Order: sequence, then structure tokens, then C-alpha cells
Amino acid sequence: MSNTFGNIFRLTSFGESHGAAIGGVIDGMPAGIQIDLDFIQKELNRRKPGQSKLTTARKENDEVEFLSGIFEGVTTGCPIGFLVRNTNQHSNDYSNIKDTYRPSHADYTYQQKYGLRDYRGGGRSSARETIARCVGGALAKLALQQLGITVQAYTSQVGNIRLEKPYTSYDLSTAESNDVRCPDSEVAEQMTALISEVKAQGDTIGGIITCVIKGCPVGLGEPAFGKLHAALGGAMLSINAAKGFEYGLGFAGVTQRGSEQNDIFENQNGVIHTRTNNSGGIQGGISNGEDIYFNVAFKPVATLLMAQETVTLDGTPTTLTARGRHDACVLPRAVPIVEAMAAMTILDYYLLNQTTHVKK
Amino acid sequence: MSNTFGNIFRLTSFGESHGAAIGGVIDGMPAGIQIDLDFIQKELNRRKPGQSKLTTARKENDEVEFLSGIFEGVTTGCPIGFLVRNTNQHSNDYSNIKDTYRPSHADYTYQQKYGLRDYRGGGRSSARETIARCVGGALAKLALQQLGITVQAYTSQVGNIRLEKPYTSYDLSTAESNDVRCPDSEVAEQMTALISEVKAQGDTIGGIITCVIKGCPVGLGEPAFGKLHAALGGAMLSINAAKGFEYGLGFAGVTQRGSEQNDIFENQNGVIHTRTNNSGGIQGGISNGEDIYFNVAFKPVATLLMAQETVTLDGTPTTLTARGRHDACVLPRAVPIVEAMAAMTILDYYLLNQTTHVKK
Amino acid sequence: MSNTFGNIFRLTSFGESHGAAIGGVIDGMPAGIQIDLDFIQKELNRRKPGQSKLTTARKENDEVEFLSGIFEGVTTGCPIGFLVRNTNQHSNDYSNIKDTYRPSHADYTYQQKYGLRDYRGGGRSSARETIARCVGGALAKLALQQLGITVQAYTSQVGNIRLEKPYTSYDLSTAESNDVRCPDSEVAEQMTALISEVKAQGDTIGGIITCVIKGCPVGLGEPAFGKLHAALGGAMLSINAAKGFEYGLGFAGVTQRGSEQNDIFENQNGVIHTRTNNSGGIQGGISNGEDIYFNVAFKPVATLLMAQETVTLDGTPTTLTARGRHDACVLPRAVPIVEAMAAMTILDYYLLNQTTHVKK
Amino acid sequence: MSNTFGNIFRLTSFGESHGAAIGGVIDGMPAGIQIDLDFIQKELNRRKPGQSKLTTARKENDEVEFLSGIFEGVTTGCPIGFLVRNTNQHSNDYSNIKDTYRPSHADYTYQQKYGLRDYRGGGRSSARETIARCVGGALAKLALQQLGITVQAYTSQVGNIRLEKPYTSYDLSTAESNDVRCPDSEVAEQMTALISEVKAQGDTIGGIITCVIKGCPVGLGEPAFGKLHAALGGAMLSINAAKGFEYGLGFAGVTQRGSEQNDIFENQNGVIHTRTNNSGGIQGGISNGEDIYFNVAFKPVATLLMAQETVTLDGTPTTLTARGRHDACVLPRAVPIVEAMAAMTILDYYLLNQTTHVKK
Repeated sequence: MSNTFGNIFRLTSFGESHGAAIGGVIDGMPAGIQIDLDFIQKELNRRKPGQSKLTTARKENDEVEFLSGIFEGVTTGCPIGFLVRNTNQHSNDYSNIKDTYRPSHADYTYQQKYGLRDYRGGGRSSARETIARCVGGALAKLALQQLGITVQAYTSQVGNIRLEKPYTSYDLSTAESNDVRCPDSEVAEQMTALISEVKAQGDTIGGIITCVIKGCPVGLGEPAFGKLHAALGGAMLSINAAKGFEYGLGFAGVTQRGSEQNDIFENQNGVIHTRTNNSGGIQGGISNGEDIYFNVAFKPVATLLMAQETVTLDGTPTTLTARGRHDACVLPRAVPIVEAMAAMTILDYYLLNQTTHVKK
Repeated sequence: MSNTFGNIFRLTSFGESHGAAIGGVIDGMPAGIQIDLDFIQKELNRRKPGQSKLTTARKENDEVEFLSGIFEGVTTGCPIGFLVRNTNQHSNDYSNIKDTYRPSHADYTYQQKYGLRDYRGGGRSSARETIARCVGGALAKLALQQLGITVQAYTSQVGNIRLEKPYTSYDLSTAESNDVRCPDSEVAEQMTALISEVKAQGDTIGGIITCVIKGCPVGLGEPAFGKLHAALGGAMLSINAAKGFEYGLGFAGVTQRGSEQNDIFENQNGVIHTRTNNSGGIQGGISNGEDIYFNVAFKPVATLLMAQETVTLDGTPTTLTARGRHDACVLPRAVPIVEAMAAMTILDYYLLNQTTHVKK
Repeated sequence: MSNTFGNIFRLTSFGESHGAAIGGVIDGMPAGIQIDLDFIQKELNRRKPGQSKLTTARKENDEVEFLSGIFEGVTTGCPIGFLVRNTNQHSNDYSNIKDTYRPSHADYTYQQKYGLRDYRGGGRSSARETIARCVGGALAKLALQQLGITVQAYTSQVGNIRLEKPYTSYDLSTAESNDVRCPDSEVAEQMTALISEVKAQGDTIGGIITCVIKGCPVGLGEPAFGKLHAALGGAMLSINAAKGFEYGLGFAGVTQRGSEQNDIFENQNGVIHTRTNNSGGIQGGISNGEDIYFNVAFKPVATLLMAQETVTLDGTPTTLTARGRHDACVLPRAVPIVEAMAAMTILDYYLLNQTTHVKK
Repeated sequence: MSNTFGNIFRLTSFGESHGAAIGGVIDGMPAGIQIDLDFIQKELNRRKPGQSKLTTARKENDEVEFLSGIFEGVTTGCPIGFLVRNTNQHSNDYSNIKDTYRPSHADYTYQQKYGLRDYRGGGRSSARETIARCVGGALAKLALQQLGITVQAYTSQVGNIRLEKPYTSYDLSTAESNDVRCPDSEVAEQMTALISEVKAQGDTIGGIITCVIKGCPVGLGEPAFGKLHAALGGAMLSINAAKGFEYGLGFAGVTQRGSEQNDIFENQNGVIHTRTNNSGGIQGGISNGEDIYFNVAFKPVATLLMAQETVTLDGTPTTLTARGRHDACVLPRAVPIVEAMAAMTILDYYLLNQTTHVKK
């Protein structure tokens, strides 16, 4: 179970890397939202393999087919079924891992938990599953658009190369103009060079994605356990290869005094705002109307195009060199996935917040 | 809503800082577990105010009363209601914040979301709510005990003072021997000194808690959205003042190559283990049998015993100096809360995992 | 688990017949609702034992204490903890059933499922658990009141004695004027006589409760699985001793032709209504603005004050004659419970319906 | 929302009558279950239109395609996506109802709730949605088979024609040998004649389906709100056209005395059983090991091939005569749907029951 995400707006996803299709059902999509299919396909294309030299060579069209819930271009409030066919499987690439556990992959844990596994391309544990998230996220974005809420993520660190300034120092709209999705073109080039270097070695590298949500009204979040940042954190950590989450000042803020970190309330032209935003737009688990921003840490991709020691299913030591087509760094393609999870979370909590009072 | 935590083992909590009581209902507690009331009270005492010079002077006995679900000392499988009366409220300490928003507190967001708030001591947003979590966690620990699973947290950083080595370098059982709950007595003294210094200034300081789960079997975790670390992360981020979560190598690992970070599988006397444990005991969202470890970042306490600018409910600028009794650093008292959330999460996922196969 | 009812408005209940207390937590109660404590206590008194000669002689004050979520008489949107102490336990009345399974009670199934049971007064399976429902229902009614929605139930059948006409033929407000809660005073007397007769024999009798919900707007209900009548049915069937549920024409309607049963739409002064209401106010699982009405069947109480054959825990045949204080017919006291479950369901679905569209 | 059914074993369904496809995702299917595709297709064929003279002439192959979660013929524990393409839509049959509300259909309530509706063939409110339930039910049956649990339903009443004896008097395996699915061939003929007669008049007729579950172990059911019969009742009432549910003696039992209805416990060769089974296999909300049986009432189909008064969307009176292909009686095709909902409920509660105790 637990292939369902969300409370009111809910995505249930299915699909394996080399099965027939990846897809899902979106339930709780608000009725009456105009559906822009081009926009949705563009969102999907942002995570597509083969879109640049930085990403895996696997070629997939990743065309989404909607099966229900949309009538004459508008959402009906009924569940939206969708699927993306897998077309470019090279399943025999994976025959060598049928009986071998790839280091730092999910092979061992799936095998132990379920007693069997679809080993082809990692099966369900493959990041191809995130296609469903991108579709859900694209729909959520269409609903958020009507509310003036935007979600924008970008690569802020690859290996040791990172943006030194906070998100407010950059024009985030430029992030999409380079393959690595970093809003500083010079840093982007350095990141690209690093990824290329690592890739040439058959190795991989990690990094950090920063996400910014603007236009979010005051009031989203459901304490105690449904704090908005807890929901965002849980969502982000469910993305493949994610290893950490922090919002506002996050880990760096632990060295500060309260007198440095507290955000002073001010009256700005009749609206209460905070002078600084160290809180990251969330106080007491509830959005306060300021920008929400957070970081997600991603580990280096586990699949290496170099020999690694490991064991077979029965525990015999062996050596494995991956075949197949793999990313040397997930960051560029993870940017739209971070956005998708954020958009779904925000819409879900927006809808939940509509239940705080009875309305005639 | 969202005052319920968990899927099978579920804690529903209630209560405000200065209301009649804090309490909750634990549903899904396995039947047949022997209840050690002394142990539970001791766990509660670990988070109690006034237990050392480092913590708030508020004196509360925090005695838990169980109301159901336990019969002749054994859990019956029926819901366990419990409460802890609030006895030492000084509500008039808070009359000055009735009409004022405390910086970086939840006053503003609660007022805006709900249209009113119990301002006394922060009401529902007070960390007194975590009493319920400690009770839930203590019960979960009693069940985990039978399975040989232990959960141990400790303070690994306060401000700039931190443990430099990984958890495996310390005897974690010594953490409880000092007020700050740090397993290195020298570092503990430095932390204590820092907190005292900060407190004397009327200021506050943040820090990091590390948690280690030992004895967890392979197989806990429910991909895609119920990955074990996503559940742990969501749980930790729901704790008051938490700003970040990372497991395994976490944020530090983003600078590594895959060839450095991957955990090689080995056959150790017939059992498959990983040579290193950079994965933090979780791979593909499922526990792999190694130790699970993670960090939680806490911001400095928002309540300062010094003057701060802010605004009133109607936006008029004002200055606020907190009265009342407050911690200068939440870390020491947050250690048992981190453990409690971890124990509840692990037990919940242990029970969920019992549904992976049908058993005759 | 499953001691939680509802989706947005959620009651989590706890407590056993002879434990310390019955209570619960209400989460998702809308903020800003004025709380009328007298009204709530009156609702509780309607289900109280000992209120008339027809009911058990057990004397309980059943005074509810609220522990959170209400501030200065108004709901805050935070969870509402409450409890009712058990004060009049005669636990030694039950020592004889410690090792014996009472026929048609839950003794056997609880013992088998959980491996142990609190046998005193039926423990968790006792209808004293419905106290928590009545508190939740009273709160829900206070919210529904603001929306002009009313919920009214009455006893429509006891044994073979029944009201022959549909609910529209009676002044339902008169139901509370007699002990049996039937809106026809003559029939009420016959019912009362029957219950007294049965009681004198140490026997028990079943019956039917009818419930009518007026003022419910169009649009409540969440197909496919959350149809409003499915939610109401599930709610009613969760009441102790309930054996059946039907809405609109229900079972009687199966003999009709579609041309008889269909409800014709009409324009009544600019508002679309149905000419008849065989649908019971729900079409396609969604309320249509007409009165919602349904029946709940209750079996005769299982506890008899006469000798019955049975077996002990180890299967030895024995004979059991109940001691203790018991109702000969649950109907009169079940009326407020049916209302409570209906009120909670309607409020829950009202709030859910507020998420159908995004609202700026 | 609420297009998801179940707690552990969960079906999320999607699709409209005249959209691209009906389908769903099954999450929580136990791992390691052998999948018999022929069996699943046969189950689907039992609800297929056009299978006999009694059912609608709409011709659909209703071939299910599985998209995930099954590997080499065995379930992997990962979500099972599936779909059935709609191929025989005659959407222009429905152009006349675009602006008109069909009596006792969901047109009006959907339009009011969502602000728009897919009017073609009833859209989401069409019983074609139950295809997804039959697929889910077939999978559940495959898991239950391994546990020796069987689910069998049959038509026990059509209009005034009914089986007079309890289920134990019939050989239920013969039910499938006639079009109406009644285990008494003579009564089946009378039912068939009645349906044909009603159909010739352009009218429709209701009826009752009885369902029997054998082999269910003691212990399924989660009081208080998750009583097994409450779950079954909620499940059955979510089926299109269902108007009532009763289990055990149900409504008929309300006229009995407790001394008549109570089920005496007996020791039958070392196993505790009840002498009678008026409880319907469930006591205190938990299965007691006896056969579970219940009835579901279905109203006459709302679509009539005769003129009916109604109004248009703007309230103008009009007359409507249905075109299209419709059943005169849903009972025969609803039998497999009742079984499917029962099988999913039982499997779900079987898995839930596996969490009652911790198991090493």
C-alpha cells in the first residue's frame, strides 16, 4: 500500500520501469478547472530521459493519455485516470541483475520484503514512477494558477559547486534556460562540467534542489501532525534518492540565536508581513503568506558504469558492472519532480483549509 | 484535522498549554503487550519542564492517567485513552500577548487560519502537546522491546558546538547521564555552558538531535509515498521547532561520488549486510537491517526574554518582552520526543509490513 | 484500530463499560462555533441509563468534561478532547461471565481476536461506548444548526408494533414526549406495554428507528465509494445491535416498477424539486435537497434475565443467567445515537463538499 | 474524492460510461499470489452487458489489461494498474439528455455538485464503473482462495417473486446455471418471465441479492466503527441502485424476542460453534467463524423506455423518453458486483486482522 499521496487531492500511482505503463489516478481534483494538455506534456518533458547530454540516453516519448475525469477540456470532479506507455524498454539489459543485488539500490530490500521482485530496470523502485507525480503536479499547478500560487524549483548545488546566495538573488525564470536547471548561468556551466566529468568516469554525483512557492495565502497547514512543512518534507523525501529536507534557514540556522533568527512582524501598507523570512513562510506549521522555500538533498545515483563488489541472491560474492542507460546526476530531471510534489501538497492543503470553517 | 499520526498504530492527540489537560487516544496498539507504567512515567519525565537548570522553571508533575485499553496490566487491542492534567498554569503571564503577535511563533498564523486562538501559552501550538507523543512513544517502545528494536536519540549539536564523530563512536547509553543528553561528557559540558550563557542573555539557541534505531528487521517501508525515511522525516518535522531532517549521509553526502557513497553488500557469516552504512539503514524506502540513523535540526526557541518589535492584531507596531517560563534551548527536552516519534513510526510500519503477505 | 469515524470531522473514541472513563477526541470540528454545554449535556442525557422505567437501572450521571479545543465558549479548530467518568460500575456483577461466553454477545469474538478481553460489562463492546458518539453528534448538531440542517430520529417499530404511515404523517417533535420516543402517543403506549411485558419475562425485543434529516443542501456525497447513503449506512451499522439499514423506499421498494418509484422533477417556484421522494433525498449517492430519511433495524438485546445454554472458554457446556442491569429494548436509548451518527456524517460530508471547487 | 475503497487492500477506480476507459489501481494486494487471468476475465464477463436476453444490448468485450504489479504471473506487492477500454459507445444516444434531468438518476445532483457533468451515458454515475470493482474483487478472490474463503451471491428476489427459504436450503453452485442467477431453477424461470414482461412494457423492476461467505476465520472486524458488517454494509450500499442492507436475520429479526434470536454456543467436536446462526456470522462486529450472510436491496432501474415528465437544466418542464440500451433489472448483473465488494472487504479485514498482534 501507500502508493497514494495526499488527503483531499490524492494521487495513486502505479507502474514499473519495464512494465506496460506508468500511470495513476488523481482523485479530488477540483471541478471546473480548464485543462491545458500542452502544458501538462511540457511538464512531463522536463523530466523525460534523453532531453540533454546530461541525462540517460533512454528515449521515451512519455506521452500521457488521459482516460477519464476531463470532459470537453474541463475537470469534472471525477477521478482522472491516466497512463504513459513504456516503449523503449531494453529489458535484457537487466538480465545480469536478476540474481544480483546492486549496491545502494532497492533490489535487496524489495526481494526481502516481498519475496520476489520485478528486477527489470529496478521495477517499481525505478524513478520512472515519478512520471505519475509529474502528471499529478501539472494538474495541481493548473488549479494553483487560478489562485495565483506558483511553484518553482532549481538546482542549487551539484557536488561541491553551489549557488552561494539565497533564492531572492536570482531570476528563477532563467533556471530552465540551461540543462542543469540552475538560475546562474556561470554556475550552471560549472555544474555541467562536473557532471560530464563524473559521467566520463562512469561515476555519479549528488546535489541539492531548492524550491520556492510564491503567492501562498496565510492559513495552509494542519497542526499538530499535518504541519505544512512536515507534509512538504514527507513529500520530498518520498522522491527517489532524496536524503534530506530543510525549510527556511534549516540546518544552517541551528547555530543562530533566537534574536538573530526571529522574524519581526511589520505592518506593510496595511498588511502584516515579516521583515525577514527565516521561517521559510511557515510558522507553527501554517503558511504565513511569505514565500515558502526549502532544500532537498539528493545522493549520487547508485548505478555506476564501473565494477562494484556485491553478492548474489544466495549471498555469493560477485562483481557487477552496470549496463543500461543511466543518469550521472539526477538533479536536472528531479527539478520538475520536486515542483510536482510541492504543487500537489500545496493544493491538497489549500483544499483542506477550505474545511476550517463551515460556509453557507 | 490532522491531529492523528500513523496508519495502523495511531495516536490522536489533544490539548492546549493552559487548558484542562493534554491527552490522546492510541488506536491500533497491539494486543497482549505488558504495560510497565513506571517506564512510561519515566519517559514522560524525560521531557518534563523543570527537570534541570537548563529547562523552563514551569513545574508540572505530568502524571499520566490511562483511561482504557489496558486490563490487568496488559493491552487489550482496544483504544488507549490517556490524559495529563495541566496544573501549573500561570495564564495571566500571557495576558500581554492576547492582542500581540509574538515573532516567529504561531500566534499570527493560528489567528488568521482559525479566526480566533487560545493565546494562553501558545494554546495548541505549545510544545506541551508533545506530552501525548511521549506517551504514545513509550507504548510503542514497549511493543518494540519484544521485537528487539531499540530507539535512542541524543543531542549532537548545540549552536556551534557539536560532536565531530558518527554515532558509532559513542556509548549512547551515557547520553542520559548529563542534562543536555549528549554522549560525550566534555562536549556536553560545553553545550551546557553555551546554553547557560545564552539563557543569561535572555536569548535562545538551536541545535541538532541524532537518532539511532537498532534491531530493525529488513522490510519496513511502503514505497512509493510511504518510504520509511519519508515517514520518519514527516514525523520529525511535525515536532515543534524542527527545521530539517536528513538520514544516512544526508546533506553532507551530496558532495560525494556514487563510488564513495554506495554501500557494498557482503556475506557476513551467512547473513547479507552492507560493508558501510551510508544509506542509513534504508534503501529504496525499505529498511535493510542495518542501523537506521538520522538528524533533526531545531531552530532557536522563538520566545526571548528581551524586547522585540512586533505588531498587534490590528497591525499597530509595538514592543514585546516575553514573560513566563521558557527554555533557552529545546534540544535536551526534545530528545525523548524524537525517540517517541521514531518509535511510533517504526511500530506502525512494522505492523503495516505484517500485511505484505496473507498468512494462514 | 478503526476507533476513528469520519474523514474531515472525525471522532476517535475510547473507553470500556467498567474502565475509568468513556471519552474521545473530535478533530476537524469547524472553528468559530458557539458551544452550548447545556444542549450537549441534554443530548447525553437522552441516552443515559436509568432515565425511565424502560431502561436499565444502572445510574450514571454521565457528565461530560471537555478538556481542549473550546476557548471562551467557542471552538478553536483544535481537537476537542472529552471524557465521561464511569462511576456506577458493579464489576462483580460480571465475575460469572469471566470464563463464559454469553450467547450473541461479543465475548467469544473478542477473546479469539485479541487473545484476552476486559470481560467486565462487555468491556469495549458495551454500548456505553456510544457516549462518545453522542458527544460528537451534539457538537456536529451545533455546527449543522448554523446551516439550518436538522436531524430527528424516532422509534417506528418495537416487535410487531409499528407506525403504519411514513414520517411525513407525524409531528416528529412529539417523539420526545414519551419514554419510547415514538411520535404517535397511542402507538407509543402499545410499544411501552410490549417492552414492559417482555421485560417482566426476562426477555428482550428488537425494533426499528427511523431518522429524518431536513434542510440538507444539494451536493453532499462523494461517489463512487463515498456515496452519502453508503456513509450513513456504514455509520448506522456501526451502532451496537444494528442489523440492517435502508433509505428511501428501501427493501419495500424492490417490488415496485421503475415507473412507480421514479421521482419526477418539478419546477416549484423556480426551485427544482422532486414530486415524490422515494429516493430518500439521495440520488447517485449525492443529496438532492429533499428530506433524507432512512431506517435502522435493531435486534433484541442479547442479555437475557433467564437461563441460557452456552460454553465456557475451554468449551465446557454450562448454563448462564445474566445478572446486572440491562435494557429489555435498546430502541428508546438508541434514538439519540442514530441522530448522533447521522449528524456527524452529514457535517463530515458537508465539509468534504466544501473541497469540490477551489475558492479564492 | 472517495474513489478509493479499503484500508490495506485498496481499490481506486476511475472512468466514465462513454470515456476512453474504465480502470483502477489496486494497492495492498498481497505479494506472491498466482494470477489466473482466465478467472479474472470470467468474473468480468459475469457482469458484461449483452450476456443474455435479460441484459442491455450494449456489446462490450470488456477485456481487462493489466499494466503493473504482476511479474511472471505472480503479484509483486506493488500496485496493480488496469483498464478496460470502452469500445461500443453510442454517445449520440445521449444528446437528448444533455440539457434534461432524467428522473431518479444522478444527472441533477452531479450537475449541482460539480457545476458540470459528463452527461454521456450517465458519465461517472453509470454502473460501468463497477467493472473496476469486479477486477478488484477477482484479485481479492484469488487471495481468499488460498485461505479457503469463498464468496457466493445469488438473486433471491425479483419484484414479488422470491426464494422462500434460507440460503442453506439451496445448492448455490447452481445459481450460475440460469440467466437470472437464482439457485432454484423454477423460481428462476418465474423471475425471468417477470423481467421479460416488465421489459416489454419499457418498465423496470427491483429485487434482492443474497450473499454468503464461507470459510471466514474468527476475528475479522475492527470495532467500534470498523465492525465487519458496517464495512460490508457500506461496501454494498456503494453499489449503484442499492437501497438497503441487512445481515443475519436483519429487518425480519426485529419482531423476535432475544430468547428466540440468540445463538447458543456449543462445543462441536472440540470447536466452539453456534447452534443457530441468526447473527449472520458476525458478533460484536467481528466474524465468529460461522457463515456470513446478508441481503442487498436494489431499486428498479431508473431508465425507462417510456415517456416521463421532468425538467430541463433551467427548470422548464419537458417529457423524456429514454433511448439507448438498458437493463430492465440490474439483479443478474449485480450478483458478481456484490461478490466483488464482499471479497475485497473480507480480504481487507483479513489483512487488518494480521496487525492485531506483533509477530516476530
